[in-house]
Amino acid sequence: MSFALFDAPYPENSSRVGFSGGRLERLSEKRDETSVAKAVADERALTLIAGRGSVLLQMINDEPKGMWRSFDDAKILGAQVHEPVLLGYERDGAPRFACFADLDREYPADGHAVIDYRSVYIAGYLNDQDLGSLAQGAALIAWHQSHQFCSRCGTKSKSVDGGYKRVCPGCNAAHFPRTDPVVIMLIVSSDGDGVLLGRSPHFPDGMYSCLAGFVEPGETLEHAVRRETREESGIEVGRVVYHASQPWPFPYSMMIGMYGEAASAMIKLDDELDDARWFSREEVQLMVAGTHPQGIKMPPKGAIAWRLVEDWVTS
Amino acid sequence: MSFALFDAPYPENSSRVGFSGGRLERLSEKRDETSVAKAVADERALTLIAGRGSVLLQMINDEPKGMWRSFDDAKILGAQVHEPVLLGYERDGAPRFACFADLDREYPADGHAVIDYRSVYIAGYLNDQDLGSLAQGAALIAWHQSHQFCSRCGTKSKSVDGGYKRVCPGCNAAHFPRTDPVVIMLIVSSDGDGVLLGRSPHFPDGMYSCLAGFVEPGETLEHAVRRETREESGIEVGRVVYHASQPWPFPYSMMIGMYGEAASAMIKLDDELDDARWFSREEVQLMVAGTHPQGIKMPPKGAIAWRLVEDWVTS
Repeated sequence: MSFALFDAPYPENSSRVGFSGGRLERLSEKRDETSVAKAVADERALTLIAGRGSVLLQMINDEPKGMWRSFDDAKILGAQVHEPVLLGYERDGAPRFACFADLDREYPADGHAVIDYRSVYIAGYLNDQDLGSLAQGAALIAWHQSHQFCSRCGTKSKSVDGGYKRVCPGCNAAHFPRTDPVVIMLIVSSDGDGVLLGRSPHFPDGMYSCLAGFVEPGETLEHAVRRETREESGIEVGRVVYHASQPWPFPYSMMIGMYGEAASAMIKLDDELDDARWFSREEVQLMVAGTHPQGIKMPPKGAIAWRLVEDWVTS
Repeated sequence: MSFALFDAPYPENSSRVGFSGGRLERLSEKRDETSVAKAVADERALTLIAGRGSVLLQMINDEPKGMWRSFDDAKILGAQVHEPVLLGYERDGAPRFACFADLDREYPADGHAVIDYRSVYIAGYLNDQDLGSLAQGAALIAWHQSHQFCSRCGTKSKSVDGGYKRVCPGCNAAHFPRTDPVVIMLIVSSDGDGVLLGRSPHFPDGMYSCLAGFVEPGETLEHAVRRETREESGIEVGRVVYHASQPWPFPYSMMIGMYGEAASAMIKLDDELDDARWFSREEVQLMVAGTHPQGIKMPPKGAIAWRLVEDWVTS
């Protein structure tokens, strides 16, 4: 049984990154207005409330905790319950939704906290499964917010099928949720002993991470890895392999984590990065442990960049 | 050197599928209005002419051949040369563009043929590199056609940066080309001796192929493989591995080819497929050879489904 499939890690590497724990049964083929109306009427239905990059959490013993609320509560809390997104169903069939609320504004709901998605995942306020559902709901809510109008003719469009489609009453175009594929890559030196990490201008002080970029039309994932690496760092890449993927609700990306083997060594920065350099295995071990003498840091655990780096340094 | 990267096939599997041969230097970080104006003015600049799912090819000795035309020719041929998409540069720096033409209509250009993208790739009218450039141009042209208006506020938007961005004069939103990730998977039985193939209602007679579906917000690639397979065929999937990816300009998808290991055997069809069944290795060998006694066929060579099936059956 030499076929690669049967040697693959299981559970796969993607199960060891943040936002990947969503387990709702989506029943995507069954979504229509009757299934949504039925799910809304189900007395077990609960919804998360999110918008503008943040989610509403309940404070329990001074800690932000629960995300799921009844529709009655959601209404009181100012969520737009008239156009909910049907995320899916729990194992027992209980429906789960996402509703938009304008959480950008002052939000004076006693016993609640408005927390941005990044902080929710870094602080670990939600369990893996709810964090995965948040990634799903956050992406869909952001998509609806930025796609209220038909991109083909400019008419105001309408959400149907539980929020998995928008239709245009002007030209009948159907629009579907958008997911932007992004390659994020750890480039390994040809001797296997060093990796290429870079600093974007918006990174926190001392942080280095994997290079990354949007996949462009007309390229494979491997081409995208080579192009972005060459453009950002001047490094040529040969071999490329897939490692893991991650839903990334900023606002609706799909991170695709790859390793690449460097075919050159001389770094030539473009304008996009503040810095990029080769780090030795020893240095990366200190960074992963949080004990680098110059305070050089990695992205948080749960980030796919962390997964790529840690899986390399412990290999 | 046990790290998986160094054992990976090179060139990778993605290099052995159709539409993946694009090799233009994109210089994506340098795209702005000055670089585009300079490229348009370059006397070596050439453009492809496409739209509505077809490309304009020159007839040479009764065969559809060349795709690249000068801007002067393109103008005569009715292409919208005022808003060209800058695809990139040949090795010698010669710029390559894509221009939209309404090829849906009667197109009376002597010595030319209007051919749909699928036929171009099945018949092999273009070499791999030009076919890759066509995939790039076709996706961008389709995106502009369906995104003339700002999805946030409904105002007519404007193409900038050589067609890699549209900006809205109404609300200042920036919009970027869309690429829809699709998982396409060959599900292998747990004993390794059979694979699951299905028939969509729109397939040609006798054709079976891999199951496939759009990646949804909030799921990893592996989740998408499991969900789509379960929804379409009732088969549960355990282990999943990545095999290859493919730009797919219908209109702007990214096919991500995966293998999955079946964890169940009993097929339960939903409404989306006409049929799905298990095929033995022997039967698949006949299908790949084109000699199946019941005339059961595979998708054309170059399709990523073909690549998944052939790489399994010869493993």
